[in-house]
Order: sequence, then structure tokens, then C-alpha cells
Amino acid sequence: MNIIESLQWRYATKKMNGEKIPQDKLDRILEATRLAPSSYGLTPYNVIVVENQELKEKLVPACYGQTQLADSSAVLVFATWDTINEESVDKYMNEIATQRGIGVDMLADFNGMVKGTLSYMNEEQKTTWAQKQTYIGLGFALVTAALEQVDSTPMEGFVPAQVDEVLGLKELGLKSAVLLTLGYRDSDNDYLSSLKKVRWDNEMFFIRK
Amino acid sequence: MNIIESLQWRYATKKMNGEKIPQDKLDRILEATRLAPSSYGLTPYNVIVVENQELKEKLVPACYGQTQLADSSAVLVFATWDTINEESVDKYMNEIATQRGIGVDMLADFNGMVKGTLSYMNEEQKTTWAQKQTYIGLGFALVTAALEQVDSTPMEGFVPAQVDEVLGLKELGLKSAVLLTLGYRDSDNDYLSSLKKVRWDNEMFFIRK
Repeated sequence: MNIIESLQWRYATKKMNGEKIPQDKLDRILEATRLAPSSYGLTPYNVIVVENQELKEKLVPACYGQTQLADSSAVLVFATWDTINEESVDKYMNEIATQRGIGVDMLADFNGMVKGTLSYMNEEQKTTWAQKQTYIGLGFALVTAALEQVDSTPMEGFVPAQVDEVLGLKELGLKSAVLLTLGYRDSDNDYLSSLKKVRWDNEMFFIRK
Repeated sequence: MNIIESLQWRYATKKMNGEKIPQDKLDRILEATRLAPSSYGLTPYNVIVVENQELKEKLVPACYGQTQLADSSAVLVFATWDTINEESVDKYMNEIATQRGIGVDMLADFNGMVKGTLSYMNEEQKTTWAQKQTYIGLGFALVTAALEQVDSTPMEGFVPAQVDEVLGLKELGLKSAVLLTLGYRDSDNDYLSSLKKVRWDNEMFFIRK
């Protein structure tokens, strides 16, 4: 299947069959997610990879009873940093310097630019900005899962405080932003699996200039 | 190149060489973008595809002088709907009914659910929610461009009112949310093209449960 066929094949799977994803496929989905870009490359979020069956089941009531969580192979929880401040930026600059083998002083201009942008944002704006970045990662995970013929369900329908509680995210300085369930469709029991995918037509969606 | 190699290869290109992208590649990038999922599938945004050279040049000052816009092959402007209300949902329900060949009354429960969710959001929250959806589309476009060996630059650094002005978006009931420049890297003049990509390590980014 090429990229377009893969994206036509995928759909938000509401019933999964409990089968495990082969490790190499999960690894590629995660690696693609890790490689997703973000504003300034800061990537102010983490991804919690939940494979523990008990925890997956505990997520069901925190997500309005959506059973695909329990029947999935893994659940990715994209969670933004509670605190995004100058210290976070300094940590990032140190990471760049280490990975590129340069002095952190070489990054002074970039450092100032990132801190300058953050200085204009209040806490709520920072969270929104960080959440947007998670959606790029979500997009990368969705496309890669489709290429690997792994089913997935992007999920905004959950109670963040409850998901955070189940996974102990508050203690980690994190807040859940969006979820992605990975596994295999249970076609016989998911009426959605056979429905025609609906998207705005080319002519309605694109405006050519 | 496989998916991971493609994502390693891509970077936020700051200098482009003016070369055009072959039509079939652009078409696939756009089709993948159109197939991106969104909350309830509503996709409350449009994508403006700017290939007109004069308009691309006019976008440069609206984007803090970033010259890759002028030297790109196309600029995708993800723009959210100004108005997201019950009428928008009804329009969407009619589209689903048409595309699936069913009566719109079959969608009554779904219709009520989407309207119910919207009823809890104020205008600002609706815009934020719509903007997040554009970032999934952005992710789809970024991955597909990389698979097609087309360079791209995701851009949050722009003055929305100015971009909207250049493209006449207000008259279309749209607001620019995020941009993606597509084209080919000018490696000789982009010092970024040879820099090691920096991402949080596996151990820092993923939390296994």
C-alpha cells in the first residue's frame, strides 16, 4: 500500500481485537513520533507509552467508557510539560550543545529568541502552544501507524484530570493533551470499519491562489 | 528511503532554491493532508495553496522576512473557520449523508453529539480547538512531503492579520493558523541543512508504563 492507500485504509477504530503489535512496528511508530518537529524544536511534551493491561483498563472510565483502550496493544498519551520556563529552555540548549558537540555559548542568539517568544505568553497560552505541538506528533504517529498497517484511534474524548490520575502524570509535571490508541481493528464488531470515509471535497477544502 | 530515513532527512528548510515540485508530488502531499483526521471529522479549516509568485513574495514581510516563502514552490496556509456553529455542523452532516448515500436523519445522534460538544465552547476555545486540528493536517503534510523527498518549513512565525490581508482570508471567513512552505533546499546557502537534528533522547521523551 502506498501512502494514499494507507491513509484511505485507516479510520478511527472504535473496536480493537486485543492483538499485540509486533515490536518493530511499534518501534517505528514511536521513532517517527520522536522525530516530529515542533516550534523551535523544543518539543515541550512527553509521550507515555502504556502497554500494561491493568493501566489500559483503568483508562477506559477516564475516557467515557471507550473500550478500544482495553483491547489495544498500546496507548500513547501525549502530555505537555506543566512548567515551560527559562530553565526548560536552558535544558534544551544544553541538549543541543551536547548532541552537536558545541559550546552552549554558540546558541546564545537562539536561546534568547526562544526565551523572548515564551516571555510574551501567559501560562494558559504556553499550554495551548505546547498542546498544538503534540498534534504534530500525533499526526506523525497516525501516518506511520497507517503505513505499518496498524490501526489507531486519535482521542480527544477523555477527562484529563482522570487520565493524569491513572498514570501519575501530575507527579511527573505533565498534563495529558491527546491520546492515540494503537492496535488492530475488530472488523466484525466495528460498524465504522466498513463506512465510507468522509472528507471535504478537494474543491471545498483547498483554495488555490 | 524508508519512513524513518525520510524523517531524519527532513529539516525546517530556511533557504529554498526556487525549483518547482512536480505536480504529482504536490498532489499526493495535498491528498494526504485532505485525508487527515480531525475531531468528529468536521475538519473546521481550509488549506490555501499559494503558488502565485507575487503572493508568495507578499507573504515574506507578513512572516518576518523569511525568504524561503518567495523561493518555495508552494505555500500551504492552514486557516480555521471564523464561524463554527450549528449551521457548520448541519452542513457537515449533509456532506456525510451525500457522500454515504444515506438520509441525514440517520445522523441525528451524531449531529446532536457534535453540537453538544460545541455548545460547551466559547469562541476562543472553538478557535483553539480548530487550530489544533490544523496541526494534525500539518503533520500529515510534513510526513508526506518527506516521503516524497520534498523539503518543507512548518511556520508559526508570522503575523496572522497580515497573512490574512495578503490572501483575503477575512472575506472568506477564515483565519490563518499555521503555514507550511514546500520546495527544495538550497543546501549551499542554508547552514541548517548540515546540522545534526536534535530531538530528546528515547529515554527522555518516552515514559514506559
